[in-house]
Amino acid sequence: MTGEKDKGWLAIAGLGPGDEALVTPEVTAALAGATDVIGYIPYVARIAAREGLTLHPSDNRVELDRAALALDLAAQGRRVVVVSSGDPGVFAMASAVFEALEAGPSRWRTLDIRVLPGITAMLAASARAGAPLGHDFCAINLSDNLKPWAMIEKRLRLAVEADFALALYNPRSKARPEGFARALALLKELCGDDRPMLFARAVTTPQEDLRIVPLGKAHDEMADMRTTVIVGSSRTRIIERAAGPILYTPRSVAEVAS
Amino acid sequence: MTGEKDKGWLAIAGLGPGDEALVTPEVTAALAGATDVIGYIPYVARIAAREGLTLHPSDNRVELDRAALALDLAAQGRRVVVVSSGDPGVFAMASAVFEALEAGPSRWRTLDIRVLPGITAMLAASARAGAPLGHDFCAINLSDNLKPWAMIEKRLRLAVEADFALALYNPRSKARPEGFARALALLKELCGDDRPMLFARAVTTPQEDLRIVPLGKAHDEMADMRTTVIVGSSRTRIIERAAGPILYTPRSVAEVAS
Repeated sequence: MTGEKDKGWLAIAGLGPGDEALVTPEVTAALAGATDVIGYIPYVARIAAREGLTLHPSDNRVELDRAALALDLAAQGRRVVVVSSGDPGVFAMASAVFEALEAGPSRWRTLDIRVLPGITAMLAASARAGAPLGHDFCAINLSDNLKPWAMIEKRLRLAVEADFALALYNPRSKARPEGFARALALLKELCGDDRPMLFARAVTTPQEDLRIVPLGKAHDEMADMRTTVIVGSSRTRIIERAAGPILYTPRSVAEVAS
Repeated sequence: MTGEKDKGWLAIAGLGPGDEALVTPEVTAALAGATDVIGYIPYVARIAAREGLTLHPSDNRVELDRAALALDLAAQGRRVVVVSSGDPGVFAMASAVFEALEAGPSRWRTLDIRVLPGITAMLAASARAGAPLGHDFCAINLSDNLKPWAMIEKRLRLAVEADFALALYNPRSKARPEGFARALALLKELCGDDRPMLFARAVTTPQEDLRIVPLGKAHDEMADMRTTVIVGSSRTRIIERAAGPILYTPRSVAEVAS
């Protein structure tokens, strides 16, 4: 029993988009049992300090260092939670931990490692706006830190040809001010000016800002690092209401065409 | 105050993949305040009966009737929760409700309607297996009830060309025994036999069954209506461990290539 109790573990957990009411009980329980919480500064800032819990906030772009620290602490018998916003498996820490695990010492492969899913930004944004991802869709990370721009452009072209709705993560940051403008110009060329899209900033937080606009009215400064962008498919529709528009994609291709 | 209290509302809520620890507190609160719960029989069966709550289970393939009932009850001042498994905005009830709203009487457009996100099947499956959706990916509903098979095939081809990981919902049902075999044959042709994939059945429930296999070893009877299938991108990797393999897609294209 003591041995079991002393055995370390690593949970890679999603905190959801910001509202505490969107944190799953599974994640809350893992945090309650943790000795160490590791993650990007603003995500660790969401965790309340308590006796017996060490917080390890770190800066952006040090994901592999953070992952190695987490694996090392778990190997020492600590109970470690790595926190991501949204879902840890979507452009977040889970892949970074597995990259570190694969490259690291073989003893790490005996660790108890679990991924605890969360509400990812595109699903929170979609819910707030209606249901723009109600039919087939794709998710593309627009950051070219870790992949060449040509690949992003190829994926945008093919995704539009497939008539997916597109969820675009990390559209724009101070370090990459130009990429999103290029992506928008390409999307306008491929989809036309009337295609509806959503800029969803800081969804479910007090700073939430939702804007539904046609592609022709979109410009790159509508997005920042806290924005998720959704571009509708050719079937995506707007329902006008006094309380604000609803953006949604019908389930059926045939019904819309008839 | 009484007027506010008597005002109906409609919440379209995601119950997550099955484990109650994955139901968000937001959804739990909505259910606690509801007078009526509407949904497909197995999802409504997850809701505990209580005084003052009417359960309205209905069969599959009556989504628009269900949506109209929900809107009508909310318009009568009832507090209604439509339940989906997973996330209501991903191949689920949110789009059906908005289709009914758009086609229905204009008074429905003044209703208080909210979509409450949930953990969708692909994210739960991905978490259990590792992080196969850690890079760009797409989600395709393989049911051809509501779209022509040619569109599914076109989307599979373009998604593989874009080198997305693929999450495939509703791969196979008794009513559609053949489509998934065709999809698998196409994917083998496009991706080769070695591409790793995941069959994730009844994720997070006591019936959970996860199988990571190369495409060449996959056959259509590995999937049923409770299975979510994930096909890796060309970068998706397996980490072998005594406790079972981890399936993940690295964040970086450049790092893997170097």
